[in-house]
Formats: sequence, structure tokens, C-alpha cells
Amino acid sequence: MNPALQRLKQKIQDQKLDLLYIDDPNLIGYFTDFESEPHERLLALFIINNEEFLFTPFLEASDAKNVSTVSDIISYKDEETPWEIIQAKLKSYGKSFQKIGIIESSLTVDRYKQLLAVTNASETIDISNTLQSIQLIKSEAEFNKMTIAGKMADKALEIGANALKVGISEQAVVAEIEYQLKKLGISEMSFQTMVLFGDHAGSPHGTPGSRKLKENELVLFDLGVVAEGYTSDVTRTFAFGEVSSEIASIYEVVLKAQEKAQAAVKPGITTGELDNIARTVIEEAGYGDYFTHRLGHGLGKTVHEFPSLSKGSTMEIKEGMCFSLEPGIYIENKVGIRIEDCVYVTADGCIPFTTTRKTLTNVQSQKK
Amino acid sequence: MNPALQRLKQKIQDQKLDLLYIDDPNLIGYFTDFESEPHERLLALFIINNEEFLFTPFLEASDAKNVSTVSDIISYKDEETPWEIIQAKLKSYGKSFQKIGIIESSLTVDRYKQLLAVTNASETIDISNTLQSIQLIKSEAEFNKMTIAGKMADKALEIGANALKVGISEQAVVAEIEYQLKKLGISEMSFQTMVLFGDHAGSPHGTPGSRKLKENELVLFDLGVVAEGYTSDVTRTFAFGEVSSEIASIYEVVLKAQEKAQAAVKPGITTGELDNIARTVIEEAGYGDYFTHRLGHGLGKTVHEFPSLSKGSTMEIKEGMCFSLEPGIYIENKVGIRIEDCVYVTADGCIPFTTTRKTLTNVQSQKK
Repeated sequence: MNPALQRLKQKIQDQKLDLLYIDDPNLIGYFTDFESEPHERLLALFIINNEEFLFTPFLEASDAKNVSTVSDIISYKDEETPWEIIQAKLKSYGKSFQKIGIIESSLTVDRYKQLLAVTNASETIDISNTLQSIQLIKSEAEFNKMTIAGKMADKALEIGANALKVGISEQAVVAEIEYQLKKLGISEMSFQTMVLFGDHAGSPHGTPGSRKLKENELVLFDLGVVAEGYTSDVTRTFAFGEVSSEIASIYEVVLKAQEKAQAAVKPGITTGELDNIARTVIEEAGYGDYFTHRLGHGLGKTVHEFPSLSKGSTMEIKEGMCFSLEPGIYIENKVGIRIEDCVYVTADGCIPFTTTRKTLTNVQSQKK
Repeated sequence: MNPALQRLKQKIQDQKLDLLYIDDPNLIGYFTDFESEPHERLLALFIINNEEFLFTPFLEASDAKNVSTVSDIISYKDEETPWEIIQAKLKSYGKSFQKIGIIESSLTVDRYKQLLAVTNASETIDISNTLQSIQLIKSEAEFNKMTIAGKMADKALEIGANALKVGISEQAVVAEIEYQLKKLGISEMSFQTMVLFGDHAGSPHGTPGSRKLKENELVLFDLGVVAEGYTSDVTRTFAFGEVSSEIASIYEVVLKAQEKAQAAVKPGITTGELDNIARTVIEEAGYGDYFTHRLGHGLGKTVHEFPSLSKGSTMEIKEGMCFSLEPGIYIENKVGIRIEDCVYVTADGCIPFTTTRKTLTNVQSQKK
């Protein structure tokens, strides 16, 4: 059995749930090894004490049987009514479902209503925290997958830096990175690859476009790679040529904030304390108003998991957690600089998944 | 004002809603022209009679101000509590929110509970059908965007066919297609591009992998391109070399089913009747058990919209609807053939968005 599913079942017994319902495709991958994107069709895992069944669209049933660690696969065709089949299946257990575990942050209201209708449940319990606590601490196997994803992200940065030349567009650099990665067998990025030139990086959520690279400006890369179902996430801001001393000094502030936070990571410190360490460096340099987002976020099967490293947050860091440290300074229409590593927390510090150099690097001169 | 938002406001007045809440990023793009992917952060449109405000993460506020047709932008920082800010904003309207419109198919239970808590609503109305009916009939502007997306999908097929050679992997063909498209300025596909060789296409939802192309087998392409926020979706199954007469005859069955359904499209026929036309061709040829999915689905801003063309469905086809027609025959570990065009319904027929030849084509001989 999938080890995460085993841990989940233990938690269900502790909470005395009659049924646990999961329909987030990513979590289904995590708990059953069956990775699938069913779009609007229903794909759901039902756990009843020590038994479980996976409910899949007919199209997916054969793949699910081959890959999933769950042996009981129930499927439905497009012309059938999924919830009728579920109701009949649940009835076959010959028990009542009073107390049901759900994930309120991903369950939609229509499915929630259907679930209540077919079970006649009297109580639903949000198990988001239980799930997040299971996912929060990564196993060695997960660490290994994330290490591969991190190495590929370093590779992606190298490809990106090599692709830079005067006149190339942001979009063309994105294309080059993803093309070279695909040839290496990487078929999925963690999120839309971001490549922003010069002042265009002044918006922290910009989209790569047709803007052309000029000499002597910064290039911000924010990207990640999915390897064996696990993500990486890295940001580097390179110089293409020489940049002004003002820009170089802003870079130094971001770098110091990032490195100081990363050096402080160890079990016992809190997420808010880490955010504060980076934020204080930036505030003391006079750029506090330009660091407009949290320090970081957890990652694993997705790039947005627990913990959240935001101002005032209080979660205690523990060994095995994985998260990003990504301070930035954004001055609209002028400059945007962000530096990010994701790390794995060890007994007395942390290991970064990405190792691309963080000091300000002139990638144009390297090519000459 | 965005014309779709204008139509939506009219519908709200008809239904006497005090408030309409939308947090689906795609719909927010549709109604405000602000396209964004906020991940787990909250991005929501609140419509109160003739007024509206867009609630965005702080990171997105400046982009939203520049792009959105909504002028009232309220934003929140990561360390703030979004629903407290929303509650204060709603209070400023000085009215009560009894009857609230929501979208049950996309609204999550946690946000639903938050919304109820900050409004003290006594009634929620699912406006999914209203929305789908607004999106169902495409405007000329939308038709034009989808036409561009379709032409780019034809181009993608051409690139894919040209990339085929003995020994190339499915993944490498996907990489080539997306790379060439990115160089043409296309940064987003409608969904993960599918390229499947020979028997690997026997699973209708297969994933491109390291399988290598051999001579004399089929190649199935299912792909789509996003152009100006609108999608395309096309499937072709090419021959790479010569295929057996049995496979050629299965191909003819799928082609006949697809063409017969497409020829029958016009206002007044129903979705189920179209499904039945294609399904009957396949059943009469003896392959009924191997056409395991519905005939098609609507598309527009996403590839999964209304209508659904499934067995027994009863929606009447109207001018301006857009949907796919994609019959297939899948024999596991042996062969998979699907042919798909998406069409726009006119007063007396339909116009396909893609025009790549549908008769069985030997793309190897073409290259010689």
C-alpha cells in the first residue's frame, strides 16, 4: 500500500470518520500513485475505515488499474450519472455514513451537496489540516525526487542564460528553455516559466512577452520543473552586461535578505521569524515598501503547499519541511530583482535544492 | 464596460440577486478582461446591482488596474485577512445581502462558508446555468479569436507531421511542436499536447512518453492552442508509412462517423442526436464497444464548456454555439483512432475552426 495512504488511514481512525472523500487529482496521485487530470469529470477516492475505492471516468479506468495502489476501481461512462453509481457502491458497505471527512479548500459546493445527498451525513469535518500535516514532512523518497527536480531547474537556468542575446524576446527564451528540457525528457513545468527583462520585472507577476533584450539590463528567471510528480521552484536575476551601481546595490540587498533567511533555517524557528529576518534587511536598506509579498511557500507535489512564510505567521519549522525563500524588490517601470532557493530542513539547518550561483553574475561576459 | 458583464448584470436584475460572487479566474477574465492565475490566493469579482469591485492579491492590483474593465480594485497583502477586508467593503454599501448568486461548480466549500459568514445571506442561488447560457453563444469577436486559435492548431499539426521520423519519441514530437509555436508567439496550449504512436493510442487518455516511432504505424495528435484567451482543439490520426487494411478500414469508420455528425450540425438538432449519428455509424460497423466517450464538448475560453454532446443529452443546438465532434475507436494495446474538428454553428450548418485534411494521410510519403 502507498505509505501516505497508510498514515492517512491512521488519522481517520483517530478522528472516527465513517468516510473520507478526496477529489483533488493531485492528492489522489499522492495517496494512490495514480496521476491524472480528469478536467471536469469526477475522479474521487473514498476511504471507509480500512477499505477504499477509486471512482474514475471510464476513460481512465484501465490506466488506474495498471498504476494505482488501490485495487477496487469503480468507473462510470459519460452518459451515466456518477453519483447514482457512488450511492449504490456505498450502500454495498451496509453501514451508515454519519461523519464524513472532506477537504473544504478544494471540494466544490455542487459536489459537497451531492456527497451529502448520497450519504445522508449529519456532520462534515474539514481534514485540510490533517492532510497538510501529512504532506508537510517529506520522506526520503520525496526528498530524492525533489532533488532531481531541483537539478533540472538549475539546468533550465543554464539553458536560459545561454539563450540570451541582444534582440531576443522573453517568449523566445521561454521557448528555448522548455524545448531543451523536453528533449531531456522533462514534459512538465511546475508553473508557467517566467523570463522578464529589465524594467518589465518591476511587476512581480509579469508575463513573458515580446519585449526584446537590450545590453546592460537584468534578466529575471522564475521557473520550476516537475520530476516524478514533484516540483522545484527557483528564481535568479542575472545581469546581461553591466548594470548601474544603484541596481547592483539593490541586488546586494535582496541577496543579503535571501542568504540571511536561508542561514537561519533550522528546526524550532517559526515561519514568521524567517520572513522577518529577510524583511528587516530590506526595510533597513530603505526598500521595505518594495518587498510586496511573503518570503516563501511550501512545495512538494505542488508549488503551493504548507508552510506559508508570511509576516506574523507562527508555524514552527520542523525537519523534513520543504519551502521557498524568495525575497524581492520591485520598483514599477524600473527594476525587479528576486532571488529564490527552495530548501529541505535538516536536523540543524537546511539543504537547498538548487545550487546556481547567487552573487550578481554577468551572463553576457561569461559567453564571450 | 465589458459586454459580457453587461449581459450578466441584466440577468442578475432578473433574478433579484443582492450580490453575485465569482472567483473562477477564467470567468473573471471573461467578465473583466483581466486574465490572471492567482493560484491559492483569492481573486474575486463582486457584483452589487449596477456596481462591481474586483478583489485581488496586492501583487496583481497594478496589472488589474491597467487591464481590467472594472475600475474599483480592492487588494490585500499576504499578511492581511482577505475576508475581513471584503466584509468592510461590503458594509460600505449600506445594504443587506440576503440573496447571493454563486457558482457551485467552482466555488469551494471554505470560501462558500466565508462568503456566508461575511454577508449573513439567507439564500444562495447557483447561477451556473445562467453563466453557461451567457458563454454558450459566441460573439463575432469571440469567433474571430477562435478562428485564429484554430489556424494555429492546423499549423501545430503540420509542425508535428513534419517532425515525424523513425526513432523519434512521442515526447520529442511534443517538444518540437511547442517550440516552433512559441517561436511564432504562441505561449500557451489549450491542454497538454498529446502525441501517441501506434498501439499506445489504444488508451484514449494516454500520455506522450519515450515510445519511439516505427515505420508503418499510426500517429495520433490531439492538441489545441490558446489565442487571445480563446482555445482550439483538434485531433488527427496520420499514417506514418503504410498501415494494414484492417486499420485502414477502422479509420474509415471513424471518419464516416465524424463527417456524418459534422454534416448534420445545424440549429434545431439536439446534442444527443448528434452523438447518436456518430455512434450509430460506429455501432453498425461493429465497434460500438470501442467508442468509449461522448462525441464532443463545448469550448471557448476553456476546452470544457457547454454543451456536452453525450448519449441521451437533449440540449438544442443554436447558432453561435461552438463545440467539438470527436468520435474515436480504441482497442487496447492495438490501435487508437480519433478525428476531431471544432465547429461554429451558423444559421444553416457549421464552420470548422480547423481545416487539416481528414482522409487517411501517409505523412511519411509526403516528406519524401
